[in-house]
Amino acid sequence: MNASEPVSDGAAGSWQFDRETAVRPTDTPGVWSTEVSDQWNIGQNPNGGYAISSVLRAMLASAAASAASHSMPISVTSHYLRPPAAGQSAEIVTEHVRSGRTTSTVVGRLVQEGRERIRVLGTFGEEPHSVGPPTLTIPPFPVPQPDECTSRRELEQGIALPILGRLDVRIDPALTGVSGRAEVAGWIRFLDGREPDTTSLLLFCDAFPPSPFGLLGRIGWVPTLELTVHVRRPPAPGWIRAHLTTRDIGDQLLVEDCVLWDSSGAVVAQARQLSLLRVDQ
Amino acid sequence: MNASEPVSDGAAGSWQFDRETAVRPTDTPGVWSTEVSDQWNIGQNPNGGYAISSVLRAMLASAAASAASHSMPISVTSHYLRPPAAGQSAEIVTEHVRSGRTTSTVVGRLVQEGRERIRVLGTFGEEPHSVGPPTLTIPPFPVPQPDECTSRRELEQGIALPILGRLDVRIDPALTGVSGRAEVAGWIRFLDGREPDTTSLLLFCDAFPPSPFGLLGRIGWVPTLELTVHVRRPPAPGWIRAHLTTRDIGDQLLVEDCVLWDSSGAVVAQARQLSLLRVDQ
Repeated sequence: MNASEPVSDGAAGSWQFDRETAVRPTDTPGVWSTEVSDQWNIGQNPNGGYAISSVLRAMLASAAASAASHSMPISVTSHYLRPPAAGQSAEIVTEHVRSGRTTSTVVGRLVQEGRERIRVLGTFGEEPHSVGPPTLTIPPFPVPQPDECTSRRELEQGIALPILGRLDVRIDPALTGVSGRAEVAGWIRFLDGREPDTTSLLLFCDAFPPSPFGLLGRIGWVPTLELTVHVRRPPAPGWIRAHLTTRDIGDQLLVEDCVLWDSSGAVVAQARQLSLLRVDQ
Repeated sequence: MNASEPVSDGAAGSWQFDRETAVRPTDTPGVWSTEVSDQWNIGQNPNGGYAISSVLRAMLASAAASAASHSMPISVTSHYLRPPAAGQSAEIVTEHVRSGRTTSTVVGRLVQEGRERIRVLGTFGEEPHSVGPPTLTIPPFPVPQPDECTSRRELEQGIALPILGRLDVRIDPALTGVSGRAEVAGWIRFLDGREPDTTSLLLFCDAFPPSPFGLLGRIGWVPTLELTVHVRRPPAPGWIRAHLTTRDIGDQLLVEDCVLWDSSGAVVAQARQLSLLRVDQ
């Protein structure tokens, strides 16, 4: 798309992520148009976290129309129905479910060629007013500094990863191969220098190598059936630290957990996804 | 409701849970009627896990109409919009989103007095064919035997709990008070002898005392904003073992995790919920 076209949030134009997830209202209320870029692909398919980012923008606009302060995606669940098509336009259809005093709930659907690809259900709240420490939190998982980690670009992934032209993903060298643990830890940021915000945390949750590879080896594509992200607070600028673990693999499904921390060490998101394991081990 | 009335699954009539979550089709396709019992209340409100059980039945019927084998709720996310009203009828509106070879996705909405109370988005799959051990799993959390645990009925909860006339909930005595840990462990089963099935696991995930009480004391109602349950396999008969932990409390929200095991020690469900903490500590 043309970066000079109007976009929903006024902040786009400068950064790749904002340009390539921008949504434009159509003449039909609740219907938006977007272009699904092929620059965030995992192989032939758009990364799942990327694919929902434009949907999230439309949902945020829908929430803001009723409650402008409900700008933080406190709980977003995405069900992946069919792979979205990269390099093609898409329609996003939003449904405003409810706005109350503290939260707004919105549905978003990504539709291409008349077929729904992703169904997203999200609740949005206010950004926290306090800056005090949390009552209880998850301490930052120990990871070597980014410069001591391995760039995901240097890893043999068995698949083309255009997304690594957009994201700088660093992996703890102890967890890059078959470590015997279904675990990945590392760092992530945008390659073009864009700082993280609450919207980008959904993408970051889904941009690391699947943690089951550490136990099972590269077992091919592990398609996400469902991803739920809880954004806990806006991230401070800088690298986002990530820890992904899978404790539960069987019956051709797996449940993977992810925690993200910002550069101050604060938990900024928790996520969990249910993925399909094509070959049960 | 009258137990002799026709219900959706033909299996009802005998057991309280089946009778009190039964749904009946109406003349409008995709619209069902149900009665929200007041026998599963937490205080004045129906338990959240109970409230979605009738919605789940209608969603399962919707999935079965396209793919009869998609009978296991592999991922179900519920957003609680407004408290449902106990002792009143309700309408359940289903939307069949998609059925593919391996999964079906369905939306269910619980509506009372014209207002949507709960929005549920679920994906259903086949029950696993294999009975082999999982590739990776979560070992059963150690809990004293049910007879050595404390019945939830004996605990001072600060609120009336009619639901304990339906469910037998036992708590590890080490985790019944302010233990300094946001953690609860115990056992659960239906009081009338009904065996667990995949549908009842959603209820069981939400029927223990909130685990933050172990750290913060009884801080009053902790309303669930969103609950996601991944059912992993059908449970064996007998008690269901539960472990609930909260690692993340702050900014008036908390994220609680739950794992359920059956009497054979197999993980049968994982769940996570985002709840509102009315008074930040």
